[in-house]
Amino acid sequence: MTDTSTSPSTSTQVQLVRRPTGRPVPEDFRTVQIELPPLGVDEVRVANEFLSVDPYMRGRMNDVKSYIPPFALDETMTGGAVGRVVESRAESLPVGTPVRHMLGWRDVAQAEADSFSPVEEIPGASLSAHLGILGMTGLTAYVGLTAIADVREGDTVFISGAAGAVGSAAGQIARLLGASQVIGSAGSAEKVTVLTGKYGYDAAINYKDAPVRDQLPEHVPDGVDVFFDNVGGDHLEAALDVMNDGGRIALCGAIASYNAERPAPGPDNLANLITRGLRMQGFTLGGYVDHAPEYQRRMAEWFPAGDIPQDETVVDGIENAVEAFLGMMDGANIGKMLVRTV
Amino acid sequence: MTDTSTSPSTSTQVQLVRRPTGRPVPEDFRTVQIELPPLGVDEVRVANEFLSVDPYMRGRMNDVKSYIPPFALDETMTGGAVGRVVESRAESLPVGTPVRHMLGWRDVAQAEADSFSPVEEIPGASLSAHLGILGMTGLTAYVGLTAIADVREGDTVFISGAAGAVGSAAGQIARLLGASQVIGSAGSAEKVTVLTGKYGYDAAINYKDAPVRDQLPEHVPDGVDVFFDNVGGDHLEAALDVMNDGGRIALCGAIASYNAERPAPGPDNLANLITRGLRMQGFTLGGYVDHAPEYQRRMAEWFPAGDIPQDETVVDGIENAVEAFLGMMDGANIGKMLVRTV
Repeated sequence: MTDTSTSPSTSTQVQLVRRPTGRPVPEDFRTVQIELPPLGVDEVRVANEFLSVDPYMRGRMNDVKSYIPPFALDETMTGGAVGRVVESRAESLPVGTPVRHMLGWRDVAQAEADSFSPVEEIPGASLSAHLGILGMTGLTAYVGLTAIADVREGDTVFISGAAGAVGSAAGQIARLLGASQVIGSAGSAEKVTVLTGKYGYDAAINYKDAPVRDQLPEHVPDGVDVFFDNVGGDHLEAALDVMNDGGRIALCGAIASYNAERPAPGPDNLANLITRGLRMQGFTLGGYVDHAPEYQRRMAEWFPAGDIPQDETVVDGIENAVEAFLGMMDGANIGKMLVRTV
Repeated sequence: MTDTSTSPSTSTQVQLVRRPTGRPVPEDFRTVQIELPPLGVDEVRVANEFLSVDPYMRGRMNDVKSYIPPFALDETMTGGAVGRVVESRAESLPVGTPVRHMLGWRDVAQAEADSFSPVEEIPGASLSAHLGILGMTGLTAYVGLTAIADVREGDTVFISGAAGAVGSAAGQIARLLGASQVIGSAGSAEKVTVLTGKYGYDAAINYKDAPVRDQLPEHVPDGVDVFFDNVGGDHLEAALDVMNDGGRIALCGAIASYNAERPAPGPDNLANLITRGLRMQGFTLGGYVDHAPEYQRRMAEWFPAGDIPQDETVVDGIENAVEAFLGMMDGANIGKMLVRTV
């Protein structure tokens, strides 16, 4: 089972050394090179191809009780990654197997076989799809639109952060679920063009042009039935203004506040929840992973060829992972932000 | 069918003459005396015994689109009332029939019979129960706890404005639905005593003693599963701090803001909805009146004798209706605030 001919003996890893205050800075992290011990029984060594950098990781850099424990200081950060087994002492994962795992910020991962899940190799597609539309990202969009926001035939759906990883998936899935109008927000003219040109949004607004609250109403003359929120702050307030009676709001993220040093006040129009009978529900994927088979089944119907319009923004090199993360927090990406480690 | 011997020929009514800015003042209203025309076919005349003054009426004094149209200027305000038929040209409602209706702020109401619903006379109880625990007030509490917040066996439930009409009903109903801990907030030491002494609350806080956010945590060491909110503002923010994962928030009212002249910012911890997977849903009773038969069935099980601990705060005289309304907005009542018109 073991083939060590192409197996790297060291692993370059990124660790958190200091809890950031506000926007993280490079000094909050360090890159280390680890000499890997020989494989133990049932262990495998995986050469990563792509790491995922995600907004939720900002929360894990703080030392607060949350749905997922904080990153430990001076230990390698964890997160989604895909790669291939390069050395194996586990029958279930022979050398060459493409896998997805949560060992994150390192170019080579080594652990017991059950830390890794084999994934399907899609002809002509990168393994990175398993971090994006076919992975947690796509499932998050699907769960938010179905289990949380209950998108129905004919709904008008507004998605904030629509050019991001989850947002760009959500817009397309909303349409497939029967939404009649899909409107998105993003932070550049280029992104707005991608939203309407590539992802099939009916309209898109650049939130840097003018306050969202001023821009949104003209694009949704009949109001909004479902709001899928990745941003929070001004976007949530703007959406609450235009929600229709009985509307549903899925709170997936609040990237606007993740770097905040102190809590910011919430929207000034929450009372609309009462007068319009709105439901607002937050979620993280942890409680909904059992929706994965259903999602995979729907995706196989929608995109039998696996040919899903999507973008990736790729930064090369594990040594640039922090830069990729910070760029993603600033909106530098279209679609999924990834670090390529081969 | 007609017995005019005890039928009044005039009706004293309260009208809105000016839309209030902030807290209403007596000058926003006027009291008029109307000479009643003879009954038309199918019409009845009802001598009211009690009028209901409710927080939602403040919203109707503003000229804004909402789930219920604003009060018209220079017309008599509408709202819940109970009384007895004193003159009738409708076979369905003979003289003496106790009725509930929505013609509100007047001591005598006259209209077609289908504007009035006959109610059951409960031996030893006042008709006013049909405005309170057996009426919209009780149903609002029940719907909020069941259809909206899904109270379950063993839940810890926090209720704001717990000594008010809906709040005092909600506390008792929560317990009957299986809540293991019920905590309430109110605005005076006297109310706090009533909550724990009479309504069976496990603990109660006086929100005038110190910020709710500071007081609440010690009373809910294991967190809150359901928050039934009548107040909004600081209460919602305090509850969001202590909600357990998967908690549910029913937004029934936001009396803290009803007199606000400009919108106030919302809670600074809405992101807890995401990290804790919380659901927050607003409601008004309009969409849930079909729950009335279920509620009546449950109440008949819970209180077969109709003997439900409750309070009423009664102000005498239609001419004091505005004062009663303003007092209710300021928290002068324990339980339902009523105006007695006989």
